[in-house]
Amino acid sequence: MQPQGVLETIVYCPDLAAGEAFYRDVVGLVAHTRLPPRHIFFRCGSGMLLMFNPGVTSTERVEVAGSLIPLHGGRGQGHVAFRVPATDMPRWRDRLASLGVAIESEIGWPQGGESIYVRDPAGNSVEFVTAAVWGLAEW
Amino acid sequence: MQPQGVLETIVYCPDLAAGEAFYRDVVGLVAHTRLPPRHIFFRCGSGMLLMFNPGVTSTERVEVAGSLIPLHGGRGQGHVAFRVPATDMPRWRDRLASLGVAIESEIGWPQGGESIYVRDPAGNSVEFVTAAVWGLAEW
Repeated sequence: MQPQGVLETIVYCPDLAAGEAFYRDVVGLVAHTRLPPRHIFFRCGSGMLLMFNPGVTSTERVEVAGSLIPLHGGRGQGHVAFRVPATDMPRWRDRLASLGVAIESEIGWPQGGESIYVRDPAGNSVEFVTAAVWGLAEW
Repeated sequence: MQPQGVLETIVYCPDLAAGEAFYRDVVGLVAHTRLPPRHIFFRCGSGMLLMFNPGVTSTERVEVAGSLIPLHGGRGQGHVAFRVPATDMPRWRDRLASLGVAIESEIGWPQGGESIYVRDPAGNSVEFVTAAVWGLAEW
């Protein structure tokens, strides 16, 4: 028995407004739920990207239907990678350039596939990556 | 233009051996790549769960094909949620009990769906969650 996949991927951004602008305008995600200053949630493919303010979620006790939501809250520079079709990579470079988002690194992997790395406003390493990096077929 | 989804979800575990045992035996994931003390990667559904030792990835400069992999490395208690079918929830409770993994909280959400929360060896909040929590259909 194993899970069907990851349903919730988390990024921590103390400045939710700046984080929302980045994941909306740069990454292109659509907000699902907004509850500042605690969190903003986005749909992403078949799952969810949850952006939390770690200063709130690491300290605030929230009860739902009689049970506590466990505390969590990471600090430092996290990392997340978004799957993009190889044929879209030139358009991602164009979008980043047009929005003035600096590309920190680009890697053409020896096993195939490629990655573009930028930073979100919290300093998290945000990657746009093709499936071939992991030996997966394009959709 | 938006990504097809999240391809890489990250958890940080300073003790990789303990982390590997948890994600293998408790979560049921299969290791894809092992490179201790830096990382252990797992397949998970259509994506990857990447477990990193933040003490290494936040400081070690790794060059691939002439480009640097950006530094990253979160501290504190992170969070990840795995999608499981609603019909499997009793079996997940049984597995956790049989392995002696304490359930920190269980939530039956007002909007539907349910969550079981445990902790990995690094203190990350690990959730087993059904799709209904996010208004998504079961697969």
